[in-house]
Amino acid sequence: MPPDAALECTQLTQTKTSSRDRQIAFLFDLDGTLVDSVYQHVLSWHEAMAGAGIALSIWRIHRRIGMSGGLFANALLREVDRPMSAELMQRLRDAHAAAFKRHAGSITPLPGARELLACLTEQRVPWAIATSGREETAAGLIAKLGVDPAKHPVVTRDQVRYAKPDPDLFETAAERLGVDILDSVVVGDSVWDLLAAKRAGALGVGLLSGGYGEDELVQAGAYRVYQDPADLLIHLDEVGVRRPA
Amino acid sequence: MPPDAALECTQLTQTKTSSRDRQIAFLFDLDGTLVDSVYQHVLSWHEAMAGAGIALSIWRIHRRIGMSGGLFANALLREVDRPMSAELMQRLRDAHAAAFKRHAGSITPLPGARELLACLTEQRVPWAIATSGREETAAGLIAKLGVDPAKHPVVTRDQVRYAKPDPDLFETAAERLGVDILDSVVVGDSVWDLLAAKRAGALGVGLLSGGYGEDELVQAGAYRVYQDPADLLIHLDEVGVRRPA
Repeated sequence: MPPDAALECTQLTQTKTSSRDRQIAFLFDLDGTLVDSVYQHVLSWHEAMAGAGIALSIWRIHRRIGMSGGLFANALLREVDRPMSAELMQRLRDAHAAAFKRHAGSITPLPGARELLACLTEQRVPWAIATSGREETAAGLIAKLGVDPAKHPVVTRDQVRYAKPDPDLFETAAERLGVDILDSVVVGDSVWDLLAAKRAGALGVGLLSGGYGEDELVQAGAYRVYQDPADLLIHLDEVGVRRPA
Repeated sequence: MPPDAALECTQLTQTKTSSRDRQIAFLFDLDGTLVDSVYQHVLSWHEAMAGAGIALSIWRIHRRIGMSGGLFANALLREVDRPMSAELMQRLRDAHAAAFKRHAGSITPLPGARELLACLTEQRVPWAIATSGREETAAGLIAKLGVDPAKHPVVTRDQVRYAKPDPDLFETAAERLGVDILDSVVVGDSVWDLLAAKRAGALGVGLLSGGYGEDELVQAGAYRVYQDPADLLIHLDEVGVRRPA
Protein backbone atom coordinates (compact mmCIF):
# COMPACT_ATOMS: atom_id res chain seq x y z
CA MET A 1 0.00 0.00 0.00
CA PRO A 2 1.45 3.40 -0.90
CA PRO A 3 1.90 5.80 1.99
CA ASP A 4 -1.28 7.62 3.01
CA ALA A 5 0.38 10.96 2.36
CA ALA A 6 -0.03 10.22 -1.34
CA LEU A 7 -3.80 10.01 -0.96
CA GLU A 8 -4.50 13.69 -0.58
CA CYS A 9 -7.14 15.07 -2.86
CA THR A 10 -5.41 18.46 -3.04
CA GLN A 11 -3.05 17.25 -5.77
CA LEU A 12 -5.96 17.45 -8.16
CA THR A 13 -6.49 21.11 -7.48
CA GLN A 14 -3.01 21.84 -8.83
CA THR A 15 -4.36 21.54 -12.36
CA LYS A 16 -5.72 24.64 -14.02
CA THR A 17 -9.42 25.01 -14.66
CA SER A 18 -10.48 24.12 -18.14
CA SER A 19 -12.76 25.69 -20.68
CA ARG A 20 -14.15 22.36 -21.85
CA ASP A 21 -17.84 21.99 -21.32
CA ARG A 22 -17.99 18.21 -21.46
CA GLN A 23 -18.05 16.84 -17.95
CA ILE A 24 -16.06 13.69 -17.30
CA ALA A 25 -17.77 11.15 -15.04
CA PHE A 26 -16.62 7.95 -13.30
CA LEU A 27 -18.53 4.69 -13.40
CA PHE A 28 -17.08 2.18 -10.92
CA ASP A 29 -17.39 -1.55 -10.68
CA LEU A 30 -17.78 -2.68 -7.06
CA ASP A 31 -16.16 -6.08 -6.23
CA GLY A 32 -12.38 -5.95 -6.65
CA THR A 33 -12.55 -2.29 -7.68
CA LEU A 34 -13.82 -0.49 -4.58
CA VAL A 35 -14.09 -3.36 -2.07
CA ASP A 36 -11.69 -6.24 -1.48
CA SER A 37 -14.27 -8.98 -2.02
CA VAL A 38 -13.26 -10.94 -5.12
CA TYR A 39 -11.49 -13.82 -3.38
CA GLN A 40 -14.41 -14.29 -0.98
CA HIS A 41 -16.77 -14.43 -3.97
CA VAL A 42 -14.49 -16.96 -5.66
CA LEU A 43 -14.38 -19.33 -2.69
CA SER A 44 -18.12 -18.87 -2.08
CA TRP A 45 -18.87 -20.01 -5.65
CA HIS A 46 -16.44 -22.87 -5.20
CA GLU A 47 -18.20 -23.97 -2.02
CA ALA A 48 -21.61 -23.63 -3.69
CA MET A 49 -20.54 -25.76 -6.64
CA ALA A 50 -18.82 -28.38 -4.50
CA GLY A 51 -22.06 -28.63 -2.52
CA ALA A 52 -23.87 -29.44 -5.78
CA GLY A 53 -21.25 -31.98 -6.79
CA ILE A 54 -19.71 -29.71 -9.45
CA ALA A 55 -15.90 -29.74 -9.50
CA LEU A 56 -14.50 -26.62 -11.14
CA SER A 57 -10.96 -25.34 -10.61
CA ILE A 58 -10.88 -22.22 -8.48
CA TRP A 59 -8.84 -20.11 -10.92
CA ARG A 60 -11.51 -20.69 -13.58
CA ILE A 61 -14.13 -19.31 -11.20
CA HIS A 62 -11.88 -16.32 -10.47
CA ARG A 63 -11.61 -15.48 -14.15
CA ARG A 64 -15.42 -15.39 -14.46
CA ILE A 65 -16.25 -13.29 -11.40
CA GLY A 66 -18.05 -10.10 -12.43
CA MET A 67 -19.75 -11.50 -15.50
CA SER A 68 -23.51 -11.93 -15.67
CA GLY A 69 -25.02 -14.93 -13.92
CA GLY A 70 -26.53 -16.18 -17.17
CA LEU A 71 -23.19 -16.14 -19.00
CA PHE A 72 -21.53 -17.64 -15.91
CA ALA A 73 -24.01 -20.53 -16.14
CA ASN A 74 -23.21 -20.99 -19.84
CA ALA A 75 -19.51 -20.99 -19.06
CA LEU A 76 -20.09 -23.57 -16.35
CA LEU A 77 -22.05 -25.67 -18.77
CA ARG A 78 -19.06 -25.72 -21.08
CA GLU A 79 -16.58 -26.59 -18.34
CA VAL A 80 -18.53 -29.29 -16.57
CA ASP A 81 -20.20 -32.09 -18.40
CA ARG A 82 -23.65 -31.56 -16.93
CA PRO A 83 -26.89 -29.84 -17.89
CA MET A 84 -27.30 -26.49 -16.12
CA SER A 85 -31.02 -26.03 -15.42
CA ALA A 86 -32.57 -22.82 -14.14
CA GLU A 87 -33.28 -24.68 -10.89
CA LEU A 88 -29.65 -25.72 -10.45
CA MET A 89 -28.44 -22.19 -11.25
CA GLN A 90 -30.82 -20.79 -8.63
CA ARG A 91 -29.63 -23.37 -6.10
CA LEU A 92 -26.01 -22.41 -6.80
CA ARG A 93 -26.87 -18.70 -6.51
CA ASP A 94 -28.53 -19.27 -3.13
CA ALA A 95 -25.63 -21.38 -1.86
CA HIS A 96 -23.16 -18.72 -3.04
CA ALA A 97 -25.10 -15.97 -1.25
CA ALA A 98 -25.14 -18.01 1.97
CA ALA A 99 -21.41 -18.77 1.77
CA PHE A 100 -20.61 -15.16 0.89
CA LYS A 101 -22.52 -14.00 3.96
CA ARG A 102 -20.20 -16.18 6.08
CA HIS A 103 -17.14 -14.58 4.46
CA ALA A 104 -18.50 -11.02 4.58
CA GLY A 105 -16.91 -10.18 7.93
CA SER A 106 -13.44 -10.21 6.38
CA ILE A 107 -14.32 -7.77 3.58
CA THR A 108 -13.03 -4.21 3.70
CA PRO A 109 -12.88 -1.28 1.26
CA LEU A 110 -9.78 -1.36 -0.93
CA PRO A 111 -6.99 1.10 -0.07
CA GLY A 112 -7.92 4.58 -1.25
CA ALA A 113 -11.49 3.70 -2.25
CA ARG A 114 -13.20 6.02 0.20
CA GLU A 115 -10.63 8.74 -0.42
CA LEU A 116 -11.03 8.48 -4.20
CA LEU A 117 -14.82 8.77 -4.04
CA ALA A 118 -14.59 11.64 -1.54
CA CYS A 119 -12.11 13.45 -3.76
CA LEU A 120 -14.31 13.13 -6.85
CA THR A 121 -17.29 14.39 -4.85
CA GLU A 122 -15.24 17.30 -3.57
CA GLN A 123 -14.11 18.14 -7.09
CA ARG A 124 -17.70 17.91 -8.33
CA VAL A 125 -16.84 15.06 -10.69
CA PRO A 126 -20.00 12.89 -10.99
CA TRP A 127 -19.61 9.20 -10.15
CA ALA A 128 -21.75 6.10 -9.84
CA ILE A 129 -21.35 2.41 -9.06
CA ALA A 130 -22.48 -0.36 -11.45
CA THR A 131 -22.18 -4.00 -10.43
CA SER A 132 -23.12 -7.39 -11.87
CA GLY A 133 -23.96 -8.37 -8.30
CA ARG A 134 -27.48 -8.31 -6.94
CA GLU A 135 -28.85 -5.69 -4.57
CA GLU A 136 -29.01 -8.34 -1.83
CA THR A 137 -25.24 -8.87 -1.89
CA ALA A 138 -24.14 -5.39 -2.95
CA ALA A 139 -26.00 -3.44 -0.25
CA GLY A 140 -23.68 -4.57 2.55
CA LEU A 141 -20.58 -3.71 0.53
CA ILE A 142 -21.95 -0.28 -0.38
CA ALA A 143 -22.54 0.34 3.33
CA LYS A 144 -18.94 -0.66 4.12
CA LEU A 145 -17.82 1.99 1.62
CA GLY A 146 -19.94 4.60 3.39
CA VAL A 147 -21.74 5.42 0.13
CA ASP A 148 -25.25 6.86 0.35
CA PRO A 149 -27.23 5.45 -2.62
CA ALA A 150 -29.59 8.42 -2.33
CA LYS A 151 -26.72 10.72 -3.32
CA HIS A 152 -24.78 8.54 -5.76
CA PRO A 153 -26.42 6.10 -8.20
CA VAL A 154 -25.81 2.42 -7.46
CA VAL A 155 -26.95 0.20 -10.33
CA THR A 156 -27.21 -3.51 -9.56
CA ARG A 157 -27.92 -6.54 -11.69
CA ASP A 158 -31.60 -6.47 -10.67
CA GLN A 159 -32.11 -3.14 -12.44
CA VAL A 160 -30.99 -4.04 -15.97
CA ARG A 161 -31.80 -6.72 -18.49
CA TYR A 162 -28.22 -7.84 -19.15
CA ALA A 163 -25.26 -7.65 -16.80
CA LYS A 164 -21.58 -7.33 -17.85
CA PRO A 165 -20.00 -7.68 -20.33
CA ASP A 166 -23.13 -6.13 -21.85
CA PRO A 167 -22.95 -2.34 -21.56
CA ASP A 168 -26.38 -1.94 -19.88
CA LEU A 169 -25.11 -1.49 -16.32
CA PHE A 170 -22.69 1.30 -17.20
CA GLU A 171 -25.13 2.91 -19.66
CA THR A 172 -27.81 2.99 -16.97
CA ALA A 173 -25.36 4.47 -14.48
CA ALA A 174 -24.43 7.25 -16.94
CA GLU A 175 -28.11 7.96 -17.59
CA ARG A 176 -28.79 8.26 -13.86
CA LEU A 177 -25.95 10.77 -13.62
CA GLY A 178 -27.21 12.66 -16.66
CA VAL A 179 -23.82 12.37 -18.37
CA ASP A 180 -22.80 11.10 -21.78
CA ILE A 181 -21.36 7.58 -21.60
CA LEU A 182 -18.79 8.68 -24.21
CA ASP A 183 -17.39 11.13 -21.66
CA SER A 184 -17.31 8.52 -18.93
CA VAL A 185 -14.44 6.56 -17.44
CA VAL A 186 -15.30 2.99 -16.50
CA VAL A 187 -13.06 1.67 -13.71
CA GLY A 188 -13.01 -2.07 -13.15
CA ASP A 189 -10.81 -5.00 -12.13
CA SER A 190 -12.05 -7.61 -14.61
CA VAL A 191 -12.01 -8.11 -18.34
CA TRP A 192 -15.85 -8.07 -18.21
CA ASP A 193 -15.82 -4.47 -17.02
CA LEU A 194 -13.45 -3.49 -19.80
CA LEU A 195 -15.39 -5.30 -22.48
CA ALA A 196 -18.59 -3.61 -21.25
CA ALA A 197 -16.77 -0.25 -21.29
CA LYS A 198 -15.66 -0.80 -24.87
CA ARG A 199 -19.16 -1.76 -25.97
CA ALA A 200 -20.56 1.33 -24.25
CA GLY A 201 -17.99 3.62 -25.86
CA ALA A 202 -16.51 4.65 -22.51
CA LEU A 203 -12.85 4.90 -21.57
CA GLY A 204 -11.81 1.74 -19.70
CA VAL A 205 -9.37 1.86 -16.80
CA GLY A 206 -8.21 -1.34 -15.09
CA LEU A 207 -7.25 -2.03 -11.48
CA LEU A 208 -5.08 -4.95 -10.40
CA SER A 209 -6.90 -5.21 -7.08
CA GLY A 210 -9.21 -7.99 -8.28
CA GLY A 211 -6.26 -10.28 -9.02
CA TYR A 212 -6.15 -10.19 -12.83
CA GLY A 213 -2.77 -9.64 -14.43
CA GLU A 214 -1.98 -6.30 -16.05
CA ASP A 215 -1.70 -7.72 -19.56
CA GLU A 216 -5.10 -9.38 -19.34
CA LEU A 217 -6.64 -6.00 -18.58
CA VAL A 218 -4.68 -4.18 -21.28
CA GLN A 219 -5.64 -6.82 -23.85
CA ALA A 220 -9.28 -6.38 -22.84
CA GLY A 221 -9.03 -2.69 -23.68
CA ALA A 222 -7.79 -0.88 -20.57
CA TYR A 223 -6.38 2.53 -21.44
CA ARG A 224 -4.39 2.52 -18.21
CA VAL A 225 -3.96 0.00 -15.39
CA TYR A 226 -3.47 1.04 -11.77
CA GLN A 227 -2.85 -1.08 -8.71
CA ASP A 228 -5.92 -0.07 -6.72
CA PRO A 229 -8.11 2.97 -5.99
CA ALA A 230 -5.26 4.62 -4.04
CA ASP A 231 -3.02 4.37 -7.10
CA LEU A 232 -5.75 5.73 -9.39
CA LEU A 233 -6.33 8.64 -7.02
CA ILE A 234 -2.75 9.87 -7.33
CA HIS A 235 -2.90 9.52 -11.12
CA LEU A 236 -6.31 11.06 -11.82
CA ASP A 237 -4.66 13.59 -14.13
CA GLU A 238 -3.67 10.71 -16.42
CA VAL A 239 -7.32 9.95 -17.13
CA GLY A 240 -8.10 13.58 -17.88
CA VAL A 241 -9.65 14.78 -14.65
CA ARG A 242 -9.45 18.56 -14.35
CA ARG A 243 -10.94 20.76 -11.70
CA PRO A 244 -14.43 21.74 -12.85
CA ALA A 245 -14.85 25.40 -13.77
CA MET B 1 -12.00 -28.80 -17.91
CA PRO B 2 -11.05 -30.67 -21.09
CA PRO B 3 -12.85 -33.97 -21.57
CA ASP B 4 -11.31 -36.84 -19.66
CA ALA B 5 -10.81 -38.74 -22.88
CA ALA B 6 -7.91 -36.37 -23.58
CA LEU B 7 -6.15 -37.49 -20.42
CA GLU B 8 -4.98 -40.82 -21.67
CA CYS B 9 -1.34 -41.55 -21.17
CA THR B 10 -1.16 -43.62 -24.32
CA GLN B 11 -0.70 -40.52 -26.48
CA LEU B 12 2.83 -40.31 -25.22
CA THR B 13 3.68 -43.71 -26.50
CA GLN B 14 3.03 -42.53 -30.05
CA THR B 15 6.44 -40.91 -30.11
CA LYS B 16 9.40 -42.95 -31.25
CA THR B 17 12.04 -44.02 -28.78
CA SER B 18 15.10 -41.86 -28.76
CA SER B 19 18.81 -42.52 -28.75
CA ARG B 20 19.57 -39.66 -26.37
CA ASP B 21 21.04 -40.75 -23.07
CA ARG B 22 20.10 -37.67 -21.07
CA GLN B 23 17.00 -38.41 -19.03
CA ILE B 24 14.46 -35.65 -18.73
CA ALA B 25 12.90 -35.28 -15.26
CA PHE B 26 9.99 -33.27 -13.87
CA LEU B 27 10.16 -31.16 -10.72
CA PHE B 28 6.71 -30.02 -9.64
CA ASP B 29 5.60 -27.23 -7.39
CA LEU B 30 2.67 -28.32 -5.18
CA ASP B 31 0.13 -25.54 -4.38
CA GLY B 32 -1.63 -24.29 -7.52
CA THR B 33 0.34 -26.75 -9.66
CA LEU B 34 -0.82 -30.18 -8.49
CA VAL B 35 -3.46 -29.26 -5.87
CA ASP B 36 -6.10 -26.52 -6.02
CA SER B 37 -5.04 -24.82 -2.80
CA VAL B 38 -3.77 -21.33 -3.69
CA TYR B 39 -6.97 -19.41 -2.94
CA GLN B 40 -7.33 -21.13 0.44
CA HIS B 41 -3.71 -20.16 1.25
CA VAL B 42 -4.44 -16.59 0.20
CA LEU B 43 -7.50 -16.18 2.40
CA SER B 44 -5.74 -17.97 5.28
CA TRP B 45 -2.90 -15.44 5.17
CA HIS B 46 -5.43 -12.65 4.92
CA GLU B 47 -7.25 -13.93 8.02
CA ALA B 48 -3.95 -14.35 9.88
CA MET B 49 -2.90 -10.78 9.10
CA ALA B 50 -6.28 -9.29 9.89
CA GLY B 51 -6.07 -11.07 13.26
CA ALA B 52 -2.78 -9.27 13.89
CA GLY B 53 -4.22 -5.93 12.81
CA ILE B 54 -2.34 -5.93 9.49
CA ALA B 55 -4.45 -4.74 6.54
CA LEU B 56 -3.05 -5.99 3.23
CA SER B 57 -5.07 -6.25 0.02
CA ILE B 58 -5.83 -9.83 -0.90
CA TRP B 59 -4.47 -9.66 -4.45
CA ARG B 60 -1.08 -8.60 -3.05
CA ILE B 61 -1.04 -11.71 -0.88
CA HIS B 62 -1.99 -13.83 -3.90
CA ARG B 63 0.96 -12.52 -5.88
CA ARG B 64 3.36 -13.58 -3.08
CA ILE B 65 2.08 -17.07 -2.44
CA GLY B 66 4.82 -19.62 -3.07
CA MET B 67 7.75 -17.42 -2.14
CA SER B 68 9.84 -18.11 0.94
CA GLY B 69 8.44 -17.06 4.31
CA GLY B 70 11.45 -14.81 4.95
CA LEU B 71 11.00 -12.92 1.68
CA PHE B 72 7.25 -12.82 2.29
CA ALA B 73 7.95 -11.14 5.63
CA ASN B 74 10.22 -8.61 3.95
CA ALA B 75 7.58 -7.89 1.33
CA LEU B 76 5.03 -7.40 4.09
CA LEU B 77 7.37 -5.05 5.85
CA ARG B 78 7.49 -2.92 2.73
CA GLU B 79 3.73 -2.90 2.23
CA VAL B 80 2.65 -2.22 5.77
CA ASP B 81 4.16 0.47 7.88
CA ARG B 82 5.10 -1.75 10.79
CA PRO B 83 8.18 -3.57 12.06
CA MET B 84 8.04 -7.30 11.29
CA SER B 85 9.69 -9.12 14.19
CA ALA B 86 10.51 -12.84 14.20
CA GLU B 87 7.83 -13.23 16.88
CA LEU B 88 5.16 -11.55 14.78
CA MET B 89 6.14 -13.61 11.73
CA GLN B 90 5.85 -16.81 13.77
CA ARG B 91 2.48 -15.69 15.11
CA LEU B 92 1.27 -15.03 11.54
CA ARG B 93 2.62 -18.40 10.40
CA ASP B 94 0.77 -20.20 13.19
CA ALA B 95 -2.45 -18.30 12.50
CA HIS B 96 -2.12 -19.10 8.78
CA ALA B 97 -1.61 -22.80 9.50
CA ALA B 98 -4.68 -22.83 11.76
CA ALA B 99 -6.84 -21.03 9.19
CA PHE B 100 -5.55 -23.24 6.38
CA LYS B 101 -6.52 -26.32 8.37
CA ARG B 102 -10.09 -25.00 8.48
CA HIS B 103 -10.08 -24.53 4.68
CA ALA B 104 -8.38 -27.85 3.94
CA GLY B 105 -11.61 -29.79 3.49
CA SER B 106 -12.38 -27.92 0.25
CA ILE B 107 -9.00 -28.71 -1.36
CA THR B 108 -8.77 -31.25 -4.18
CA PRO B 109 -6.11 -32.29 -6.68
CA LEU B 110 -6.15 -30.16 -9.85
CA PRO B 111 -7.66 -31.77 -12.98
CA GLY B 112 -5.20 -34.22 -14.49
CA ALA B 113 -2.70 -34.05 -11.63
CA ARG B 114 -2.97 -37.70 -10.62
CA GLU B 115 -3.12 -38.80 -14.26
CA LEU B 116 -0.05 -36.75 -15.17
CA LEU B 117 2.03 -38.19 -12.34
CA ALA B 118 0.82 -41.72 -13.10
CA CYS B 119 1.68 -41.27 -16.77
CA LEU B 120 5.20 -40.08 -16.01
CA THR B 121 5.69 -43.00 -13.65
CA GLU B 122 4.39 -45.41 -16.28
CA GLN B 123 6.76 -43.91 -18.88
CA ARG B 124 9.65 -44.18 -16.42
CA VAL B 125 10.17 -40.40 -16.43
CA PRO B 126 11.53 -39.44 -12.98
CA TRP B 127 9.59 -36.80 -11.07
CA ALA B 128 9.62 -35.09 -7.69
CA ILE B 129 7.71 -32.41 -5.78
CA ALA B 130 9.38 -29.30 -4.34
CA THR B 131 7.35 -26.81 -2.31
CA SER B 132 8.00 -23.63 -0.35
CA GLY B 133 5.42 -24.94 2.11
CA ARG B 134 6.35 -26.72 5.30
CA GLU B 135 6.06 -30.45 5.86
CA GLU B 136 3.24 -29.79 8.36
CA THR B 137 1.03 -28.21 5.68
CA ALA B 138 2.26 -30.14 2.65
CA ALA B 139 1.78 -33.65 4.05
CA GLY B 140 -2.02 -33.50 3.86
CA LEU B 141 -1.94 -32.23 0.27
CA ILE B 142 0.53 -34.93 -0.78
CA ALA B 143 -1.83 -37.50 0.71
CA LYS B 144 -4.76 -36.06 -1.30
CA LEU B 145 -2.67 -36.57 -4.43
CA GLY B 146 -2.07 -40.18 -3.49
CA VAL B 147 1.69 -39.71 -3.72
CA ASP B 148 3.91 -42.01 -1.68
CA PRO B 149 6.90 -39.94 -0.49
CA ALA B 150 8.88 -43.17 -0.11
CA LYS B 151 8.72 -43.65 -3.88
CA HIS B 152 8.88 -40.07 -5.14
CA PRO B 153 10.96 -37.33 -3.47
CA VAL B 154 8.97 -34.58 -1.77
CA VAL B 155 11.18 -31.65 -0.77
CA THR B 156 9.64 -29.14 1.65
CA ARG B 157 10.81 -25.82 2.98
CA ASP B 158 12.08 -27.49 6.17
CA GLN B 159 14.72 -29.40 4.20
CA VAL B 160 16.58 -26.53 2.53
CA ARG B 161 18.20 -23.31 3.64
CA TYR B 162 16.38 -21.00 1.21
CA ALA B 163 12.95 -21.50 -0.34
CA LYS B 164 11.80 -20.13 -3.72
CA PRO B 165 12.73 -18.09 -5.66
CA ASP B 166 16.12 -19.47 -4.60
CA PRO B 167 16.91 -22.60 -6.59
CA ASP B 168 17.63 -24.81 -3.54
CA LEU B 169 14.30 -26.65 -3.48
CA PHE B 170 14.44 -27.71 -7.12
CA GLU B 171 18.18 -28.46 -6.96
CA THR B 172 17.63 -30.70 -3.96
CA ALA B 173 14.76 -32.46 -5.72
CA ALA B 174 16.97 -33.14 -8.78
CA GLU B 175 19.74 -34.47 -6.53
CA ARG B 176 17.31 -36.84 -4.82
CA LEU B 177 16.27 -38.13 -8.22
CA GLY B 178 19.87 -38.45 -9.32
CA VAL B 179 19.22 -36.33 -12.41
CA ASP B 180 20.93 -33.24 -13.78
CA ILE B 181 18.95 -30.09 -13.00
CA LEU B 182 19.86 -28.86 -16.50
CA ASP B 183 17.82 -31.73 -17.95
CA SER B 184 14.89 -31.02 -15.66
CA VAL B 185 11.56 -29.37 -16.34
CA VAL B 186 10.27 -27.24 -13.47
CA VAL B 187 6.47 -26.96 -13.49
CA GLY B 188 4.90 -24.23 -11.40
CA ASP B 189 2.02 -21.76 -11.21
CA SER B 190 3.86 -18.74 -9.81
CA VAL B 191 6.61 -16.41 -10.92
CA TRP B 192 8.65 -17.63 -7.93
CA ASP B 193 8.76 -21.14 -9.38
CA LEU B 194 9.89 -19.78 -12.74
CA LEU B 195 12.52 -17.52 -11.25
CA ALA B 196 13.86 -20.45 -9.22
CA ALA B 197 13.85 -22.58 -12.38
CA LYS B 198 15.85 -19.96 -14.26
CA ARG B 199 18.37 -19.66 -11.44
CA ALA B 200 18.73 -23.45 -11.34
CA GLY B 201 19.21 -23.68 -15.10
CA ALA B 202 16.09 -25.82 -15.55
CA LEU B 203 13.39 -25.41 -18.19
CA GLY B 204 10.43 -23.53 -16.67
CA VAL B 205 6.86 -24.41 -17.58
CA GLY B 206 3.94 -22.38 -16.19
CA LEU B 207 0.40 -23.43 -15.28
CA LEU B 208 -2.52 -20.99 -15.05
CA SER B 209 -4.15 -23.05 -12.30
CA GLY B 210 -2.75 -20.87 -9.51
CA GLY B 211 -4.49 -17.78 -10.86
CA TYR B 212 -1.57 -15.85 -12.38
CA GLY B 213 -2.05 -14.45 -15.87
CA GLU B 214 -0.26 -16.06 -18.79
CA ASP B 215 1.88 -13.02 -19.55
CA GLU B 216 3.12 -12.82 -15.98
CA LEU B 217 4.39 -16.39 -16.26
CA VAL B 218 5.92 -15.86 -19.71
CA GLN B 219 7.67 -12.70 -18.52
CA ALA B 220 9.05 -14.66 -15.57
CA GLY B 221 10.65 -17.10 -18.00
CA ALA B 222 8.07 -19.79 -18.76
CA TYR B 223 8.99 -21.67 -21.92
CA ARG B 224 5.36 -22.74 -22.28
CA VAL B 225 2.20 -22.04 -20.29
CA TYR B 226 -0.59 -24.61 -19.91
CA GLN B 227 -3.93 -24.31 -18.17
CA ASP B 228 -3.46 -27.06 -15.61
CA PRO B 229 -1.90 -30.54 -15.22
CA ALA B 230 -4.53 -32.02 -17.58
CA ASP B 231 -3.50 -29.58 -20.29
CA LEU B 232 0.21 -30.28 -19.71
CA LEU B 233 -0.44 -34.02 -19.91
CA ILE B 234 -1.84 -33.79 -23.45
CA HIS B 235 1.07 -31.58 -24.52
CA LEU B 236 3.98 -33.49 -22.92
CA ASP B 237 5.60 -33.83 -26.35
CA GLU B 238 5.97 -30.03 -26.47
CA VAL B 239 8.34 -30.13 -23.49
CA GLY B 240 10.41 -32.88 -25.04
CA VAL B 241 9.14 -35.99 -23.31
CA ARG B 242 9.91 -39.10 -25.31
CA ARG B 243 9.32 -42.68 -24.36
CA PRO B 244 12.43 -43.91 -22.57
CA ALA B 245 14.46 -46.48 -24.48
